[in-house]
Amino acid sequence: MASIDHTVHVALGERAYDILIGPKLIDEAGALLAEKFPGRRYGIVTDETVAKAQLPRLVAGLETAGLSYDTIVLPAGEATKSYAMLERVVEGLLAAKLERGDLVIALGGGVIGDLAGFAASITRRGMDFVQIPTSLLAQVDSSVGGKTGINSPHGKNLVGAFHQPKLVLADLSALDTLAPRQFAAGYAEVVKYGLIDDPDFFEWLEANRAEIFAGGPARGEAIARCCAHKARVVIEDEKETGVRALLNLGHTFGHALEKDTGYSDRLLHGEGVAIGMVLAHGFSSRLGLAPGQDSGRVAAHLKLAGLPTTLADIPGTLGSTDVLMAAIAQDKKVTRGALTFILTRGIGQAFIEKNVDPEKVRAFLEEKRSI
Amino acid sequence: MASIDHTVHVALGERAYDILIGPKLIDEAGALLAEKFPGRRYGIVTDETVAKAQLPRLVAGLETAGLSYDTIVLPAGEATKSYAMLERVVEGLLAAKLERGDLVIALGGGVIGDLAGFAASITRRGMDFVQIPTSLLAQVDSSVGGKTGINSPHGKNLVGAFHQPKLVLADLSALDTLAPRQFAAGYAEVVKYGLIDDPDFFEWLEANRAEIFAGGPARGEAIARCCAHKARVVIEDEKETGVRALLNLGHTFGHALEKDTGYSDRLLHGEGVAIGMVLAHGFSSRLGLAPGQDSGRVAAHLKLAGLPTTLADIPGTLGSTDVLMAAIAQDKKVTRGALTFILTRGIGQAFIEKNVDPEKVRAFLEEKRSI
Ligand SMILES: NC(=O)c1ccc[n+]([C@@H]2O[C@H](COP(=O)([O-])OP(=O)(O)OC[C@H]3O[C@@H](n4cnc5c(N)ncnc54)[C@H](O)[C@@H]3O)[C@@H](O)[C@H]2O)c1
Ligand SMILES: NC(=O)c1ccc[n+]([C@@H]2O[C@H](COP(=O)([O-])OP(=O)(O)OC[C@H]3O[C@@H](n4cnc5c(N)ncnc54)[C@H](O)[C@@H]3O)[C@@H](O)[C@H]2O)c1
Ligand SMILES: [Zn+2]
Ligand SMILES: [Zn+2]
Repeated sequence: MASIDHTVHVALGERAYDILIGPKLIDEAGALLAEKFPGRRYGIVTDETVAKAQLPRLVAGLETAGLSYDTIVLPAGEATKSYAMLERVVEGLLAAKLERGDLVIALGGGVIGDLAGFAASITRRGMDFVQIPTSLLAQVDSSVGGKTGINSPHGKNLVGAFHQPKLVLADLSALDTLAPRQFAAGYAEVVKYGLIDDPDFFEWLEANRAEIFAGGPARGEAIARCCAHKARVVIEDEKETGVRALLNLGHTFGHALEKDTGYSDRLLHGEGVAIGMVLAHGFSSRLGLAPGQDSGRVAAHLKLAGLPTTLADIPGTLGSTDVLMAAIAQDKKVTRGALTFILTRGIGQAFIEKNVDPEKVRAFLEEKRSI
Repeated sequence: MASIDHTVHVALGERAYDILIGPKLIDEAGALLAEKFPGRRYGIVTDETVAKAQLPRLVAGLETAGLSYDTIVLPAGEATKSYAMLERVVEGLLAAKLERGDLVIALGGGVIGDLAGFAASITRRGMDFVQIPTSLLAQVDSSVGGKTGINSPHGKNLVGAFHQPKLVLADLSALDTLAPRQFAAGYAEVVKYGLIDDPDFFEWLEANRAEIFAGGPARGEAIARCCAHKARVVIEDEKETGVRALLNLGHTFGHALEKDTGYSDRLLHGEGVAIGMVLAHGFSSRLGLAPGQDSGRVAAHLKLAGLPTTLADIPGTLGSTDVLMAAIAQDKKVTRGALTFILTRGIGQAFIEKNVDPEKVRAFLEEKRSI
């Protein structure tokens, strides 16, 4: 009935679920949900931008399927991942008289997915939820794996829960209304999967980037390959006590830059990751771990995708190296003062290094900012 | 080394933990923790009353053991189980630079245990925590089983997580500073275990009540038996999808009364439960399910313990029966409009009834309030 191009199964035992990828799953969600989860009521959480662009399609399908729902619409943007908005969503779900067996739908990008998933996990001590990711970043990364949460004044994603969705519906046509800059930012996370441990995928991306951006069949295939990759990692290490940390390639630098630019339009998350991945490759080759030309090849590919790749690409003035170092030290991947970084031996050969000397990071950053 | 009178093991697989019961475990906690969890830092959460009465003992032991800790002290009382206090605890733990592997200590009654346990579960997506329950209610009930959470304007405990502690230390001497009225309120939950499915325990309580209140060896034994009972139920049904609901005996009525009296000093939680248990027995015998004399025997025992047993025992004016019924319908044990109640066939024979006719409850309440 529903048109599904790819299915990725996330085999997590009693928490297992499917990721469906298809051309019009938002329209078809009502029928799909009515079949899969009979008798439930729905609480849709979305943001103002997505409410305009995509909510009418979802609501039409729910109504056709005769499903009962309430909608909670929040401001768009990273600032929505806050305590205040969390309370608003939880209270909204309770006000809608949703019960523990009912379903929360997160319709939006990573911000809505993280926030609504977290709200579902704590409302009545745990409601089920469904991810309908509408940004490329959410389709390839944040909607899969069950990490949910909000930001703290102390740092990003410091408050949250592991709460797996019951189903992920990635509708390819949703990306048609996504701003090109947001699409490119999500593409940084696509590239990340190749850089971690799949050099063939990176090469395939080099060959198919244009088609992915243009919306050809390679787009769906890229998304499915990313989801399959992430699913594999999550199955192996659901709570990030080990290998899952590899998914943070580029993120320690990236988070520091995002923090420094105030989580603003100056630097989107994926843009920070793009620069962070180039820095991680450059730093690894500076340490004599990785061949220098790989870092150039990574930068070239990201640049073709319209992404920033150097500190100088960030508009405005960055904080001092001390300020950036403090942000790095506060990132949650720090254990007892030693810096943990995802380093690499080259494209597709990333590894977790727990004992990085902060002085070497500082010297490297100092040099990069003067370029 | 530590003086332990009773040990109850909560066999929950990788979430298994021990409940230790002894005469001076707060003094001994530092040494115990240093041995069990080497290399951790601690975040102590407590309330102002307990900080005066018990915190110095804990801190002295931690310092002797050379452990590093920070303390977060909150106002005492049910109102502390709020979004604002949750944020305060989480931000306090982050400000103390506690890491994911560090430990939160909940030192206090059920309010602190529920709040600190919930804060631990969401800080950095899950920190470990230790319960040091200091009220009788917390020692026999709230510190065991991993239900954590806060209250919503929509009702009690509607926001939270299942998060098991790593260890529970029930120090019998902590109860020496507890107000007698609070002790009696906790005793209502002790009686509850007998009423659910252990008529021998109820009989034993009838024989040993005085010694339990006086602080003889029966006190520790009673606490251990309650913990063993609760552990058994939690092992069978960790997430309350079935039998665990039996622990709510007396709570549907009780919660409605607590709500109606504004969660204030007019009616403590355990006092509401005491009246609720008498009502549950009375209602069951009204439905022809339970012998009438059992409800009298329950009331007599609770009364000897200094507990209220009728609506008329609540100081001030109660809301209308409609208002009480609305509170009952909003309790989280409601599924699709049908009222779920814990009913009984007599002392020690409680059962879950999912299809209680609201009209019969209303008529019963109407009659009881006119007595
Ligand atoms: N949970 C995880 O595992 C995980 C992984 C990676 C990132 N994240 C989080 O994801 C967030 C970033 O996600 P994001 O980039 O999707 O941000 P986002 O949710 O803010 O979406 C970006 C922007 O695009 C808009 N948008 C989304 N879909 C649209 C559509 N189809 N049409 C028009 N506009 C649309 C949104 O309104 C928003 O303005 C960050 O908070 C990050 O921490 C989480
Ligand atoms: N999580 C669960 O499974 C569960 C089960 C039952 C009850 N609860 C919750 O527990 C809470 C009630 O617990 P409570 O009755 O312990 O309330 P509480 O934590 O408010 O403690 C009662 C009062 O006694 C004081 N106090 C506690 N220990 C003391 C001591 N040793 N010396 C002096 N004063 C002391 C406190 O400061 C407080 O003023 C409710 O919020 C209820 O919802 C939770
Ligand atoms: Zn990312
Ligand atoms: Zn209770």
